[in-house]
Amino acid sequence: MFVVLVYDTAAERNPLVLRTCRKYLHWVQRSVFEGELSAAQYRALTTTLRTELDMGYDSIRIYRTRSPQLVDTEWLGQEMGNQDSIL
Amino acid sequence: MFVVLVYDTAAERNPLVLRTCRKYLHWVQRSVFEGELSAAQYRALTTTLRTELDMGYDSIRIYRTRSPQLVDTEWLGQEMGNQDSIL
Repeated sequence: MFVVLVYDTAAERNPLVLRTCRKYLHWVQRSVFEGELSAAQYRALTTTLRTELDMGYDSIRIYRTRSPQLVDTEWLGQEMGNQDSIL
Repeated sequence: MFVVLVYDTAAERNPLVLRTCRKYLHWVQRSVFEGELSAAQYRALTTTLRTELDMGYDSIRIYRTRSPQLVDTEWLGQEMGNQDSIL
């Protein structure tokens, strides 16, 4: 499956959440990750994130499609996603 | 088409960009909008945003699918998107 994940988490939890997301996905913009995952990888990612989030404060929005071919992407302005430049 | 838009713009341009995005889409998370648009609406949105962005600094990432039925969405933690609470 193709996954887009957008996070809005408290600053003190950002490093942990970022590390987990980067294990499974590619960073593409300040708070956005993308990638192709198996069902097992998706479960592992979300299970880990649930243990790391403050579920009453943090917010992660996830979009899934069966395949990246179903999604057209476009940049306006700067194309980001240089993984070396994160934090 | 179903559109997900994530913005990372300089603070001084955020109000303008938010106003434009809210004309066409629903706010769902800090920097994320979603919605169904016609091709004409999509062109109008992106044309307007191109005039508002500093294309050398700001960054907007857009995902499109033919239909929202092709996309599964999930929240981890807080569900946001109360449009009254934005800024």
